[in-house]
Amino acid sequence: MTDLPRTGIGVDVHAWAPEGDSRALWLGCLEWPGERGIEGHSDGDVAAHAACNALLSAAGLGDLGAVFGTGRPELAGASGSRLLEHVASLLQAQGWTIGNVAVQVVAPRPKIGPRRGEMEAAMSAALGGAAVSVSAATTDSLGFVGRVEGLAGLATALVARS
Amino acid sequence: MTDLPRTGIGVDVHAWAPEGDSRALWLGCLEWPGERGIEGHSDGDVAAHAACNALLSAAGLGDLGAVFGTGRPELAGASGSRLLEHVASLLQAQGWTIGNVAVQVVAPRPKIGPRRGEMEAAMSAALGGAAVSVSAATTDSLGFVGRVEGLAGLATALVARS
Amino acid sequence: MTDLPRTGIGVDVHAWAPEGDSRALWLGCLEWPGERGIEGHSDGDVAAHAACNALLSAAGLGDLGAVFGTGRPELAGASGSRLLEHVASLLQAQGWTIGNVAVQVVAPRPKIGPRRGEMEAAMSAALGGAAVSVSAATTDSLGFVGRVEGLAGLATALVARS
Repeated sequence: MTDLPRTGIGVDVHAWAPEGDSRALWLGCLEWPGERGIEGHSDGDVAAHAACNALLSAAGLGDLGAVFGTGRPELAGASGSRLLEHVASLLQAQGWTIGNVAVQVVAPRPKIGPRRGEMEAAMSAALGGAAVSVSAATTDSLGFVGRVEGLAGLATALVARS
Repeated sequence: MTDLPRTGIGVDVHAWAPEGDSRALWLGCLEWPGERGIEGHSDGDVAAHAACNALLSAAGLGDLGAVFGTGRPELAGASGSRLLEHVASLLQAQGWTIGNVAVQVVAPRPKIGPRRGEMEAAMSAALGGAAVSVSAATTDSLGFVGRVEGLAGLATALVARS
Repeated sequence: MTDLPRTGIGVDVHAWAPEGDSRALWLGCLEWPGERGIEGHSDGDVAAHAACNALLSAAGLGDLGAVFGTGRPELAGASGSRLLEHVASLLQAQGWTIGNVAVQVVAPRPKIGPRRGEMEAAMSAALGGAAVSVSAATTDSLGFVGRVEGLAGLATALVARS
């Protein structure tokens, strides 16, 4: 059964920047003018990061921390698009083809619906045209997502030997 | 590789109704007499809703909010079965076959084991006979699930071109 | 489409043991000397437990609680390796082949990177050589994981008819 595709899973969580902070929000490789930004060094794109983690998980290549965390200073603070491009190149170099990536953004804001197609197109472009789906969910005001402390991306991916 | 199946992911969270509230609990397309109900407008069936989200995610058709949130008044407050039926019809209309759906209910109650087969049969029936598996997990009393503020459904699905 | 593989999902959460407790940490079928241990009766190996749950979910065979919770006293307190071995034998007996299992450990500690390969090898050995990938994520100090109350394992798996 060595020709079965492989599935992977990835989560990513970031804290919102303090109210009034001027940082821009990046989500799904898009900038969201007027939305509260994310705390931290990277652009905090939980959709792109969760997708990267799910792809690396499916291919057995570790995770974002392993790939970008140390010894790759040129990728520190890289955009979600840049990270997805790099992950796609790693998979390709190891003989993996991306079947699809599915990401769910878990957050009360921003409203994903009006820009879903645009997010999917931007993430797909960064992955060389692979199928990407984006969806959204809230937590009914519960937990750290409901208290607006942070937001999460949750993703799965399917890859196969080229 | 256009013939690879596609995987999707979906989460759904609802708050429990206040203690003493008379609402019934609906979970996995079943009514659970004597169990605490769910807050809100829908029947709050996190198993059915997570399954819908995972199927829509796998097929790249958005999410429950996009499909039922606006402009579909006839589906407001629809049961989990009705939502699953509608999602199955959307997938079929777009040329997708459902491989399987796997749902995990994350909550300290109700006990899923004794009714797992019944839940799987009810959800499968709503999806036209597709394979559905149901499982359960707790959070060791941690987080909003452990504090009995709400419960979560977590699902994945596999779909393929018909 | 009965020859499609099936996907499953599994989560597992355990509370950390109190500071100063002498219990060892078991994670991914490995002992982690010097790391804080897990509360409870089992060895609390969230990576192994999440993997078991994802495999049972994919094969439609319930969950850890159903398989080990009652009437199997010989499995009470069993190690993660022993549980994975038993789950693999259940799947095999039902005619399922394991395609792969992907587990993400969600916790600020321990550092997974340096022992990822060792964890993957130990879990794979317990599953008779099936492909296992391990990755890690944090929650940016948010939620019960960020408050160091407990840690989570999140897994997906792909199985197919033998």
